[in-house]
Amino acid sequence: MADIFDKLLKHYGPIGQHRERAHGYFAFPKLEGPIGPRMIFRGKEKIVWSLNNYLGLANHPEVRKADEDAAREFGLALPMGARMMSGNSNYHEQLEQELAAFEGKEDAFLLNYGYQGVVSIIDALCGRHDVIVYDAESHACIIDGVRLHAGHRYVYKHNDIEDFEKQLQRATTLIEKQNAGGILVITEGVFGMGGDQGKLREIVALKKKYSFRLFVDDAHGFGTLGKTGAGAGEEQGVQDQIDLYFSTFAKSMASIGAFVAGDKGIIDYLRYNLRSQIFAKSLPMPITVGNLKRLELLRTRPELKEKLWNNVRKLQSGLLEKGFDIGASNSAVTPIYMKGDVPEATAMVMDLRENYHIFCSIVVYPVIPKGQIIYRIIPTAAHSFEDIELTLKAFEATKRKLDAGDYKVEAIPDMAQA
Amino acid sequence: MADIFDKLLKHYGPIGQHRERAHGYFAFPKLEGPIGPRMIFRGKEKIVWSLNNYLGLANHPEVRKADEDAAREFGLALPMGARMMSGNSNYHEQLEQELAAFEGKEDAFLLNYGYQGVVSIIDALCGRHDVIVYDAESHACIIDGVRLHAGHRYVYKHNDIEDFEKQLQRATTLIEKQNAGGILVITEGVFGMGGDQGKLREIVALKKKYSFRLFVDDAHGFGTLGKTGAGAGEEQGVQDQIDLYFSTFAKSMASIGAFVAGDKGIIDYLRYNLRSQIFAKSLPMPITVGNLKRLELLRTRPELKEKLWNNVRKLQSGLLEKGFDIGASNSAVTPIYMKGDVPEATAMVMDLRENYHIFCSIVVYPVIPKGQIIYRIIPTAAHSFEDIELTLKAFEATKRKLDAGDYKVEAIPDMAQA
Repeated sequence: MADIFDKLLKHYGPIGQHRERAHGYFAFPKLEGPIGPRMIFRGKEKIVWSLNNYLGLANHPEVRKADEDAAREFGLALPMGARMMSGNSNYHEQLEQELAAFEGKEDAFLLNYGYQGVVSIIDALCGRHDVIVYDAESHACIIDGVRLHAGHRYVYKHNDIEDFEKQLQRATTLIEKQNAGGILVITEGVFGMGGDQGKLREIVALKKKYSFRLFVDDAHGFGTLGKTGAGAGEEQGVQDQIDLYFSTFAKSMASIGAFVAGDKGIIDYLRYNLRSQIFAKSLPMPITVGNLKRLELLRTRPELKEKLWNNVRKLQSGLLEKGFDIGASNSAVTPIYMKGDVPEATAMVMDLRENYHIFCSIVVYPVIPKGQIIYRIIPTAAHSFEDIELTLKAFEATKRKLDAGDYKVEAIPDMAQA
Repeated sequence: MADIFDKLLKHYGPIGQHRERAHGYFAFPKLEGPIGPRMIFRGKEKIVWSLNNYLGLANHPEVRKADEDAAREFGLALPMGARMMSGNSNYHEQLEQELAAFEGKEDAFLLNYGYQGVVSIIDALCGRHDVIVYDAESHACIIDGVRLHAGHRYVYKHNDIEDFEKQLQRATTLIEKQNAGGILVITEGVFGMGGDQGKLREIVALKKKYSFRLFVDDAHGFGTLGKTGAGAGEEQGVQDQIDLYFSTFAKSMASIGAFVAGDKGIIDYLRYNLRSQIFAKSLPMPITVGNLKRLELLRTRPELKEKLWNNVRKLQSGLLEKGFDIGASNSAVTPIYMKGDVPEATAMVMDLRENYHIFCSIVVYPVIPKGQIIYRIIPTAAHSFEDIELTLKAFEATKRKLDAGDYKVEAIPDMAQA
């Protein structure tokens, strides 16, 4: 009889299989020093493009002061217990009210962590007869929430509205046949890999024809899109048609935690029924108070978002001018698509990091099909035009080497020893 | 066709249905002031028995200083990104090494939150052919992890070793028939409701007869049980037989986050394959550094655990002397079992809180069967003998009223207006 650990230790999973070569370099690298566009990796300064610190709030002096003051006043243990049991506070409620107002919704509920919040929201909303219709490129937290669903789910091709309507039709037919259940549509405000916005306008237009509720994960849109920074719904002029608006605090807010906003009734339902919140400790007070300060800056300093977008435009137009393929991005998330195998991609990342001092993330097989490489560049308000220019030059030089076959190697280089 | 929100807003769930009467009192109460045995509820001091601050570390001056110092040095944003991508640090690794050493294991891996960590561990370990055998009173995080499992699961009656072996036998037979898969047994070190330890000694004894791996959630045992505080495994002399040892930091450590410890290979597998960690931000640096300080105190100040146990003994023996039923507790978690309906239970809790100034949690229908009331008392090292004596007197007086029918009311009182 097999030991349940045996099969796991034979392979170690898609990324784990490379762990001996990759650990500490490609996987689990250590970026040291305060968060910013330049950080220390293995003792040397690198230009960093991997952090979702869109508005540069992580190391903003007012944020740093708020964090320190709150930790002094409250310590990091307070409050203890789940929100529902013993972990509630005026600050938690204030943050909820301010988030709801900012998003143009009646109410909001705080979540300890984005991932677990989304999983539990989907779980709490959907009964056995309900049907989920969701985008094929949805984030892992959506996929895992859908996995908990006991009923039917229909996935539509990424941002393909024709296919979306087809799946919506199937869902509607099924529900009419069952004579029970409703439809939950799930998409993202901005897709974190490709940087393209979810087609919210086209999706909500179909509310005239079909009955469904729309849940939008706007992790990358919150703070970066829309006139006031309220996100992809505001950007596309359909915020009031989003039934449940979600964002993590892990990106523009440079913090942890998350929230969901919507009509009072459904938020109250979630407040009393989210398993990941009922059975986990409340967000620490200094995190909550620190998030109040971050939200204040996000709302009252439009120059941060302007600075971000000046950098996004400079970077993306620079890449396009040099002939790079950045796909369908219409957000700050900037992918660069290239062709190459895993050893080549690894050699190129190492060249970029060691010789050009550019630290950025790549995605390769088996996460995406064989032969493809995606660089994922996250510009922030804290980057300078000089950072961007140096990076554009580095990509130009390394892409030339890639195309010339200079990175062709027999096997994946040993990054751990680099 | 039904709106998916309709059915939710008709009922609002088991606790949500009472929200208008209960909000802010029974559910989502606010405890103000520093964490300790006396806190402020609605402007008045109460003796608090609802917080899992077992060792009194939440407000320990050395912990408060460590939290403040770390927040000043790092801010609360650092590091950004998931551990695997950009959120690793020397402190995270140091905490893992110290936890592993403390638990007598080769390696450990940090988790952002206990709930999401456990869900993902179960998910990452189990393939379609594997079988999970687990205790019927397992915590919600275990239940939700098991819900993600696509294969078979057998639940055994709570702490019933005869039934455990029966289910183990069924699992073994199934796996032999399949000729694939292995068995994962899941239990808890201390059950959070009843306070009884999982029968780890009896469970591991069956490893001689059956092939399985054992995963133990020791949220309430960590720091409170065993000679060094290493938990229920140490207490029962079987720590080396636990294949994966888990504890949250939300209880004895008075923090957030969690860890899992075991042999190097399986921890490395988890490090590279836990979806809740790959797709969520790393634990903030001040939380990590603050946890290093908490772990140091937990290890080096045995007087904290002694103080806790003096209080546990004083409380539990006092309750027994007065004829209260505390069930099978052999840990710090102290349940008090009574009989009464929900309106009575509510009236009694209000009397205790308003007139005796005792703040504690109760569990009633529909969480447990109709007619039962469980008070759940969590003594800590920070409580005084005076706190315990006042509480024993209050329970004696209110129990007398309960038995005399003094709390019989027509309907659940409106706590929100209390």
